[in-house]
Amino acid sequence: MRLALELARAQLGLTTPNPAVGCVIVRGGRIVGRGATAAGGRPHAEALALGAAGARARGATAYVSLEPCAHRGQTPSCARALAAAGVARVVAGCLDPYPPVRGRGLAILRRAGIEVVAGVGESACRRLNEGFIARVTRAMPFVTLKLAMTLDGRIAAAGGDSRWISSEESRALVHRWRREADVVMVGAATVAADNPRLNCRSADGRDPARVIVDGRLSAPPAAKVFHLPSSAPTILATAAENLARARRRYRPDPAGPALELIGLPGAAGKIDLAALMRELARRGYAKVLLEGGAHLAGAALAADVVDRVAFFVAPKILGCGAPAVSGRALSRVADAIALENPRATPLGGDLLIEAETARGARRRRTGRPRPAKN
Amino acid sequence: MRLALELARAQLGLTTPNPAVGCVIVRGGRIVGRGATAAGGRPHAEALALGAAGARARGATAYVSLEPCAHRGQTPSCARALAAAGVARVVAGCLDPYPPVRGRGLAILRRAGIEVVAGVGESACRRLNEGFIARVTRAMPFVTLKLAMTLDGRIAAAGGDSRWISSEESRALVHRWRREADVVMVGAATVAADNPRLNCRSADGRDPARVIVDGRLSAPPAAKVFHLPSSAPTILATAAENLARARRRYRPDPAGPALELIGLPGAAGKIDLAALMRELARRGYAKVLLEGGAHLAGAALAADVVDRVAFFVAPKILGCGAPAVSGRALSRVADAIALENPRATPLGGDLLIEAETARGARRRRTGRPRPAKN
Repeated sequence: MRLALELARAQLGLTTPNPAVGCVIVRGGRIVGRGATAAGGRPHAEALALGAAGARARGATAYVSLEPCAHRGQTPSCARALAAAGVARVVAGCLDPYPPVRGRGLAILRRAGIEVVAGVGESACRRLNEGFIARVTRAMPFVTLKLAMTLDGRIAAAGGDSRWISSEESRALVHRWRREADVVMVGAATVAADNPRLNCRSADGRDPARVIVDGRLSAPPAAKVFHLPSSAPTILATAAENLARARRRYRPDPAGPALELIGLPGAAGKIDLAALMRELARRGYAKVLLEGGAHLAGAALAADVVDRVAFFVAPKILGCGAPAVSGRALSRVADAIALENPRATPLGGDLLIEAETARGARRRRTGRPRPAKN
Repeated sequence: MRLALELARAQLGLTTPNPAVGCVIVRGGRIVGRGATAAGGRPHAEALALGAAGARARGATAYVSLEPCAHRGQTPSCARALAAAGVARVVAGCLDPYPPVRGRGLAILRRAGIEVVAGVGESACRRLNEGFIARVTRAMPFVTLKLAMTLDGRIAAAGGDSRWISSEESRALVHRWRREADVVMVGAATVAADNPRLNCRSADGRDPARVIVDGRLSAPPAAKVFHLPSSAPTILATAAENLARARRRYRPDPAGPALELIGLPGAAGKIDLAALMRELARRGYAKVLLEGGAHLAGAALAADVVDRVAFFVAPKILGCGAPAVSGRALSRVADAIALENPRATPLGGDLLIEAETARGARRRRTGRPRPAKN
């Protein structure tokens, strides 16, 4: 199952809007086939693994990180393909929450006389596809708020300098996360101040879509995000009333990325972030990496659209400069946004602190798919 | 040695200006005597353990967390007492850096034909007496900057409310630290805003001295620190030019703690913190717990008088309110105060993040006592 997860993870971000799945077929203690969902979502992991195993699949055990599909699409249902190949046993990580599947894949296997073991490494399998699960179960993407800050909670020095707060290893991990995300999101102030590229600069890189949240159209049209060539679009999200003006102000660069506009409810400067997330899920984007700045982070937490926070904390103290999160004035500590299950991981001299929002923790506990009634 | 350390730790804060030492005497696999430095510093741990062991000390092994003393004071030298009792073997945690001892204690033992093993559990033994070691080797106290903050680096909500940022377990640990510290230090703004008691409210409590850093004499004379009964004094540290005015403004409360004044170089509002620390060391205070607020924390870090930071990080996000540390405006991240060896410990839902300043790390590496030449 660990190998199946590894295979799946390598495809994460490439398979959207499909989940990334890994499949390993073992017979007599030897691996006879392996596969992972191909870029674009087809072929499925099971089809590839079965193809590699050929006749050796007969009597074998198939490890799959997600329940095999039950619905015929462009490829035959994987559950039926496993049965047809004569697999004796299927070990599945977690149920597929997608309504046309949700337990039906395992039911097909069982009816075919195959021994089924479900829930092996379930939490890791669910976390791997947290984006896909969030999108199909609640029509929202899974949102991680990622910031790099000093131990005293600053994301830039007094003059705005922020290169670099975090260590090389931390920044490398962020690039891996960008590769696995469907969307990288920042506020217009960050685009104006830092002019970030927001692409993925890891070796096996693949750019996520860049979403600029810009209620006031303050992002400079000359900013790199509108011009750097990329296979993924740059999406400007603004108030609906700004759309016509946005079309005049931001014109697609023929040498740059595709440019899309999203108009949303909300007055200039305060657009509806929940509506933005729903629209992104509708477009098939499942995993969002929200990279700040402070005001967008505060607004997203206040709008309750964040599932997890991931703060790269550098062993530095600035004592000045921009705070990590900036929101409404709260008069009581008791009104702070509560996080759960904080944990710290050392990383190249930094500490990576991750925690779930109450929303994220609730969804993790209650969002576990139950088999559909047949 | 673990037991010797435990015995010593229980006395920490009570033995100042002497170090807290634990001693365990073992013969034939059984503990025949144990002792720890008594409150006030006498009798020494070894004398108490030898007294308990009596004749059973002959041929035994003595575990001591710090090198036995070599100088005759109010009690005979412990090294000679161990030799006289016929102890066969001494296992010592770390050398005593105090110049009249520094290796001479172990030398006396060796000359008496006792087998000596030194450096067992050395780093823990050194950490236990980091205050004493700092005072005798560099005439400065060991200073820990302790703050309780939200994950986004805030120590109070917008209205100033700060009860409570951290968990009950975190606050209980702070009370234990106060019990082990010689001095708890805060800025006048914290006294004015929070009116803290700054006493030790743990079961076996003992109050540290309270030092109020107040360059402008802005602490309200009615504040609790000037009136709550306590065995330890309240010390107001201000600019020398303010001393006469301070004497008029703050009058000792006959029912409250002793009140002491320290006049220091520096203009009002910016007193010389290194001079303050030297003066505290001169008065025998070895271990300082600096508890904020933001401006004093920033000033102490800038003045390079902090050895360790200990931030209790609560899994909350405020997005508003006072920042944890507030100092001079720095234009570059590269000019931030660098910390070393950050580590996080989960504590009642919070994360306790500790790190050394460059000064603290350097002192730890180079400040290891070397035996004196005899």
